Amino acid sequence: MAPLPLANIRMTDQFWSRWQRVLVETTLPSQYGQLVSTGRLENFRRAGKREQGGFQGLYFNDSDVYKYLEACAYGLCAHESTAVRGQMNEVIALVEAAQEADGYINTFFQLMHPDLKWRNLNSLHEMYCGGHLIEAAVAIYECLGERKLLDVAIRFADHVASVFGPGKRRGYCGHQEIELALIRLSKATGEKKYSDLGSWMIEERGNPPSVFEAELDDAPSLALQPAARHMLKQQGKYSGEYAQDHAPIRQHRAIVGHAVRAMYFYTAAADLADSRHDEPLGEALEEIWNNLTRKRMYVTGGIGPSAHNEGFTRDFDLPNLTAYAETCAAVGLILWGRTLLELTGDSEYADVIERALYNGAMSGISLSGDLYFYTNPLESRGNHERTPWFECACCPPNIARLIGSVGWVVASGADDGFWIHIPAGFDADLQIHGVPVKIRSVSNYPDSGKIEVTVEVPTPVRFNLRVRIPHWADEATFELVGDGHEAEYEGGYACFDLEWKGSTTLKIDLPMTPKWVEADPRVRDDLGRAALVRGPLVYACEEKDAGFAPQLFVVDTDIEPEERQEPMLEGVVSIVASGVREEDGSTGELYAELGASRTFDAQAEFIPYYAWCNRGPNNMQVWMRHF
Amino acid sequence: MAPLPLANIRMTDQFWSRWQRVLVETTLPSQYGQLVSTGRLENFRRAGKREQGGFQGLYFNDSDVYKYLEACAYGLCAHESTAVRGQMNEVIALVEAAQEADGYINTFFQLMHPDLKWRNLNSLHEMYCGGHLIEAAVAIYECLGERKLLDVAIRFADHVASVFGPGKRRGYCGHQEIELALIRLSKATGEKKYSDLGSWMIEERGNPPSVFEAELDDAPSLALQPAARHMLKQQGKYSGEYAQDHAPIRQHRAIVGHAVRAMYFYTAAADLADSRHDEPLGEALEEIWNNLTRKRMYVTGGIGPSAHNEGFTRDFDLPNLTAYAETCAAVGLILWGRTLLELTGDSEYADVIERALYNGAMSGISLSGDLYFYTNPLESRGNHERTPWFECACCPPNIARLIGSVGWVVASGADDGFWIHIPAGFDADLQIHGVPVKIRSVSNYPDSGKIEVTVEVPTPVRFNLRVRIPHWADEATFELVGDGHEAEYEGGYACFDLEWKGSTTLKIDLPMTPKWVEADPRVRDDLGRAALVRGPLVYACEEKDAGFAPQLFVVDTDIEPEERQEPMLEGVVSIVASGVREEDGSTGELYAELGASRTFDAQAEFIPYYAWCNRGPNNMQVWMRHF
Repeated sequence: MAPLPLANIRMTDQFWSRWQRVLVETTLPSQYGQLVSTGRLENFRRAGKREQGGFQGLYFNDSDVYKYLEACAYGLCAHESTAVRGQMNEVIALVEAAQEADGYINTFFQLMHPDLKWRNLNSLHEMYCGGHLIEAAVAIYECLGERKLLDVAIRFADHVASVFGPGKRRGYCGHQEIELALIRLSKATGEKKYSDLGSWMIEERGNPPSVFEAELDDAPSLALQPAARHMLKQQGKYSGEYAQDHAPIRQHRAIVGHAVRAMYFYTAAADLADSRHDEPLGEALEEIWNNLTRKRMYVTGGIGPSAHNEGFTRDFDLPNLTAYAETCAAVGLILWGRTLLELTGDSEYADVIERALYNGAMSGISLSGDLYFYTNPLESRGNHERTPWFECACCPPNIARLIGSVGWVVASGADDGFWIHIPAGFDADLQIHGVPVKIRSVSNYPDSGKIEVTVEVPTPVRFNLRVRIPHWADEATFELVGDGHEAEYEGGYACFDLEWKGSTTLKIDLPMTPKWVEADPRVRDDLGRAALVRGPLVYACEEKDAGFAPQLFVVDTDIEPEERQEPMLEGVVSIVASGVREEDGSTGELYAELGASRTFDAQAEFIPYYAWCNRGPNNMQVWMRHF
Repeated sequence: MAPLPLANIRMTDQFWSRWQRVLVETTLPSQYGQLVSTGRLENFRRAGKREQGGFQGLYFNDSDVYKYLEACAYGLCAHESTAVRGQMNEVIALVEAAQEADGYINTFFQLMHPDLKWRNLNSLHEMYCGGHLIEAAVAIYECLGERKLLDVAIRFADHVASVFGPGKRRGYCGHQEIELALIRLSKATGEKKYSDLGSWMIEERGNPPSVFEAELDDAPSLALQPAARHMLKQQGKYSGEYAQDHAPIRQHRAIVGHAVRAMYFYTAAADLADSRHDEPLGEALEEIWNNLTRKRMYVTGGIGPSAHNEGFTRDFDLPNLTAYAETCAAVGLILWGRTLLELTGDSEYADVIERALYNGAMSGISLSGDLYFYTNPLESRGNHERTPWFECACCPPNIARLIGSVGWVVASGADDGFWIHIPAGFDADLQIHGVPVKIRSVSNYPDSGKIEVTVEVPTPVRFNLRVRIPHWADEATFELVGDGHEAEYEGGYACFDLEWKGSTTLKIDLPMTPKWVEADPRVRDDLGRAALVRGPLVYACEEKDAGFAPQLFVVDTDIEPEERQEPMLEGVVSIVASGVREEDGSTGELYAELGASRTFDAQAEFIPYYAWCNRGPNNMQVWMRHF
């Protein structure tokens, strides 16, 4: 199983075609504007002129530029835009000029601390930035066929390989990223040495002595980011959990530390386990994944509950109001899920991808495409709001590259056929057994669960069309029009392994009824509460719609919620639930004998969680009290 | 209204006589041990020998030594102990020897940075430490009649007055404390100049330009505590709210910033308003108090919900699991409440004092008297536990001095009579209109609300005996035995203004029925929840008693809770409530359709909140779900 080139899978449903249009028309141009106004491009310009000093922003800011470039590649694959292409090419030229003769590139060190390069791998993100350079370069090369940035990336990767590796210096980055990038670079170039370097970094990590612990004694480089020391030490001792450096990867069992680091790390590791048929590694990853998705994931697919370490805490510790659930972590979960899905073909991974994609990841961006959440709490008391940018701006370009590359999680190609993981609308072209196959999914997902997939072949060809049965769909039906062929079921997929001729249509019906879900009782924060879902979407209640703070509302789950087609919020199915609500405001005393407050019958309208906070900040809640 | 000398009010009820015995037998000796083992006394020893370097611990550690001394004074007033007295005298000698010729004393600066004295008033706590020195000295002088430490304190206060004051340098301390101490020193010595200096500091604070903002440019002293910079600046601008330096005190309306600083500050200000009959200041303080106690106080009397600033956030923001509610803040609330009570004679202040005293303050110490909570959350998921000491050890000696001096909040003397604020058991002696009066309260408070107060006079004398009617007592009765005299009611007190002869007994009955209370609906964290109270005590449900995590329990408030006399936990009235509980553990999936979990009828035993966690850490909850 492997993703199709993005040029060969074009999103056609209302949801994704709108997002991809907004990506190219609004998101990418506004992000370019931020790169200019925050000095991120100026850093490259100065480095290109071999100036010294004057670096602006945080030391890892180069990475935002690279992620923006990667998103441009995907966006332009969906929609050509002269403006975006021009800005992209300008940035590529700046990056190329900034690279030093030996392949090194990192404008923070070049401008400010050329003597401190590669001395604080733990905190200073040189390889992390370089990893994003490589990803951008591969994306532009593969999607747009341009290799100028790929050559920059190759020179950088060769430079890293000249410093680090078996028989050279032992080293890996505090923030994983280059591992998966090196593997991508190998696939793009056919050069095995890059994935060898990446896999060496994966395997070296967590083996004592830690590379990072030794760095804590390097005062000059440590002084550049002293706070990192705290994250590595717990009760005065080196822990390493923050950066998944606590044990070799094959010994990992629970998900720990900084969420985004963990996601990028395990994404690379799963890719490695896949390509090397490394079963023990795959089993370790499955166990970590299960810990994450069965004990430490929000119903929205958000992960990493704590602001303290931007990451994980304990099983079932999932506070709603203070949920960190970083946008980047949800994007990372989708990346990791995709590699495990490709490794196993098990729909459980696609279930999680879908959950994160339509809820906790897409909540990270406004419907307008130019405002972002860094954190994605499941409750708001009115003070959570999207903003145009962040000092640490990892999330905006990350959600941009996800939107642009969503075709990769929607479907996959394979030697023996085609996989549909998410029944969105798309047009796909691929070759199966040498025959050009067109697969068109006509869909209004996630609003509707009725999908028609048409397979067109010029000559008969036998292959297996697999369509995932979502975990939430109780009575899914699959009907090959005019054909008695019955599906076989394997790994959570409905499989149609037959000889396809001419044009064949598969009708899929995934009934979408609003449902109330509850959490495992060990999630103490959700006890006595229920969340409203419909299909893949988790719903939220906003004060804007309810007319009162949703925290006051107690849902009567015996009364069936009613669906409404709403033109608001770019078109959503909203759902009205019934119950009672408490009167807000004072009962006279801060604490009074029970019975002082009054309740009324009430109804409240719910909207998809991803769409909340598009009409200003206000009270919001996902997990509702109920009776 | 003024407190009686502690020698003249001796606690006799089971609750306080036990705590005061534990104070002298266990708490004070174990705290002395901590002062030794953590180097706090060694710092004084080295300073006394005029050594340099080698300071151990945090820069404000001298204050713990002084607060310990203050608690010794109170403890020895209740129970003589050769051991405690010997240790106290040893420490006094160390302090005396450490003082410099000009009156300066602070072992951190003396040992480490003699050149940086008085340069970072904001963070380095020199006046704060000195304030606690003064308080200890006054306490020892007043309770035990020994003035060696008082002379040290006077020399220190004179030194401060030689540096700071009108016409001299403008300055006040980042952590308020010396203001109230200077006022105490004036009362003890009759020297007005000290309270003048304290009141000048109170009034100067918050007037631009801030003393602290300028200090942010003093790099050498700032380097000693760089973190403080963050607390003073918000979004890059000087705010001052953290240290109540945002506006002159007369303009304060809401309670903001670090809770303990605020409490010590307003305690001093209320004392000032009282002694100077300063009504505008008194009115400002009332408004701040009302904001605090009507919108920002836990049901336990805990205050300051946030760990971020050890202090206040927004109205009705009272999260339970993450409640900071520092022990010292509850102690400080009692101090402030007492000065406002003395200023106004309004029982509302005593209601808050009682709430904090029997719940959120006394939870700060273990029943064994040698383990402490720094923070007092209203829910635990099993990882909150008392410890023998802290690196920042403000709380242990603070709760010790509260226990020793509790007589001061129980009752007050006045020119025209006697006030009983809290109907604990005590023996009091005082002179009223020149007649020696004995007042004995026989009480088993807070277990029982039946109290007998006997007034004995050798010759007839007219005075007003005022007894507070607690806010929680619905049907309080007051009966003068063998006398038809009816009480008059004023300011929440039952007042008996009559000519007392011989021995007269007042029978008080404050029926204590278990009750469920609810919070103002704007406290979102308590919506749908109720807390169990009985008399002045707030109750908590621990897993140790319930047999299951109390978070799983849903109380049926229609079933009357049952009282039990329990010998456990040094004797408490426990209360059994009925309801249902959810089955703990997995329902198979992290999120499943509503109805997967099972519930059972269940009962759970509740104990007073202050007594929780005396049998090891475990799940605990105050605010229970209910139906």
